[in-house]
Amino acid sequence: MPEYFSEERSVEAVNSRMGQDINPRLAEVMASLVRHLHAFAKDVSLTQEEWELAIGFLTRSGHLCHDERQEFILLSDTLGLSMLVDAINNRRPPGATENTVLGPFHVEGAPVRQMGENISLDGKGESCLFIGRVLDLDGNPIEGARIDIWSDNSDGFYDVQQPDIQPKWNNRGIFVTGADGAYSFVGIKPVSYPIPDDGPVGQMLTSLGRHPYRPAHTHYLITASGYQKLVTHTFVGDDPYLESDTVFGVKNSLVAPFERVDHPTVWRSDFDFVLTPVENRQ
Amino acid sequence: MPEYFSEERSVEAVNSRMGQDINPRLAEVMASLVRHLHAFAKDVSLTQEEWELAIGFLTRSGHLCHDERQEFILLSDTLGLSMLVDAINNRRPPGATENTVLGPFHVEGAPVRQMGENISLDGKGESCLFIGRVLDLDGNPIEGARIDIWSDNSDGFYDVQQPDIQPKWNNRGIFVTGADGAYSFVGIKPVSYPIPDDGPVGQMLTSLGRHPYRPAHTHYLITASGYQKLVTHTFVGDDPYLESDTVFGVKNSLVAPFERVDHPTVWRSDFDFVLTPVENRQ
Ligand SMILES: [Fe+2]
Ligand SMILES: [Fe+2]
Repeated sequence: MPEYFSEERSVEAVNSRMGQDINPRLAEVMASLVRHLHAFAKDVSLTQEEWELAIGFLTRSGHLCHDERQEFILLSDTLGLSMLVDAINNRRPPGATENTVLGPFHVEGAPVRQMGENISLDGKGESCLFIGRVLDLDGNPIEGARIDIWSDNSDGFYDVQQPDIQPKWNNRGIFVTGADGAYSFVGIKPVSYPIPDDGPVGQMLTSLGRHPYRPAHTHYLITASGYQKLVTHTFVGDDPYLESDTVFGVKNSLVAPFERVDHPTVWRSDFDFVLTPVENRQ
Repeated sequence: MPEYFSEERSVEAVNSRMGQDINPRLAEVMASLVRHLHAFAKDVSLTQEEWELAIGFLTRSGHLCHDERQEFILLSDTLGLSMLVDAINNRRPPGATENTVLGPFHVEGAPVRQMGENISLDGKGESCLFIGRVLDLDGNPIEGARIDIWSDNSDGFYDVQQPDIQPKWNNRGIFVTGADGAYSFVGIKPVSYPIPDDGPVGQMLTSLGRHPYRPAHTHYLITASGYQKLVTHTFVGDDPYLESDTVFGVKNSLVAPFERVDHPTVWRSDFDFVLTPVENRQ
């Protein structure tokens, strides 16, 4: 008598069905996915009605996805999966700047600017001088580091969320370090903002008693030959959402000083970025 | 210093964010989901690229869903989750007919037929007399049991998959038992068919070295006052896919005899359905 599917041997029934000649990494990942998925359903004795709710949730999420909206990434972000994958894949030695999530608002092709230039093109918000150096683990400057920067405007929106509002590339720019590894640019002190919460993920957050806000931050993507790509933010330390970032992106080491200077900018934020050599991957 | 998200305390970081006054069942289910989701990512050290593949898979699956296509249900089916949820929620005492998955092709509102009537309206396929009784656990007939039946046509398609082909309600019908609990109808000996495999789930099955076929079966949804709803199939015992049903729906007890009789129908299949009292829910 063949052994068919049963509650007891559900994982084995599914995973033994995989072919012998398939990609071994795929086999490993899928076997683990099935194991954990089934363990979840068993642990909570998932009801038929809850399963239907989940199917509906995924379906509505999929229907909402288009070029400028990715509900599944929001889901991954708000369940901490995005930060977990980021952490697993970016373990760094002490002293190196930590990674955090890329987020959905990075755009390729921002204009390359001269050091010190102003990327806040709409004239709104409180101006801030961002200044520091890109260093290696020994504190030596890194020349030719490419610093791609983006932040929201003073209303809490990235330019891609308001495509009809000019000027283009507001609060975005790329800066390349010289021999001293130094960088500086003028932007705005960023403001906290909610992730798009008018869809299934927003409903989920409401049901869980959670808010949709991210604490104020400036995004950085820093690349330099021979070094690991650094995807990170700096955070404003007095933000009310700092300890409840809805995507769990905050790390202690990424909270930057924001000093009120009032001239020539309102604020000044000093932060050094420390890159990890490629060969140091753990 | 606040404790932010880290690889080590990722589950706690997410689950501690839930509000105090939320639905306790939702809190239980979501906490378990996060625990298993994170354990999966950690167990396999999920890479950023694999995460992106998963986001793309879910997005394409969502875009494919419409009224007549539910890719997320196919995903749940092919990962054994649908059968697992079915099993968890339909534990039955010995002697009771076992449940199996409803599948995506049930339609409300099929015509009610007289006992013995033919539901195969297109005249295709090998005719079969389906005959038996609806009984309680003690073997007594159940009067007024409503038997909703559907199967594919001889080309392996349900009528809803070929909406342009007449007649309507081909291979569907509802029969209501009398005092003797007996039922009989003429249909066709069903044929094996592939689940819709031109989408992400089909690609997944190919990558896993799996075929998309379901062994030949006839669907039954049986309801009677005071008894648990029975959602099940009967299977044709000599089907080549019986031991590799792509949705894991086969159970030993659901394999029905198909006897060649040649007159007045080509085949005859005898099967009794045994319903479980509502109060016997386990
Ligand atoms: Fe952001
Ligand atoms: Fe079917």
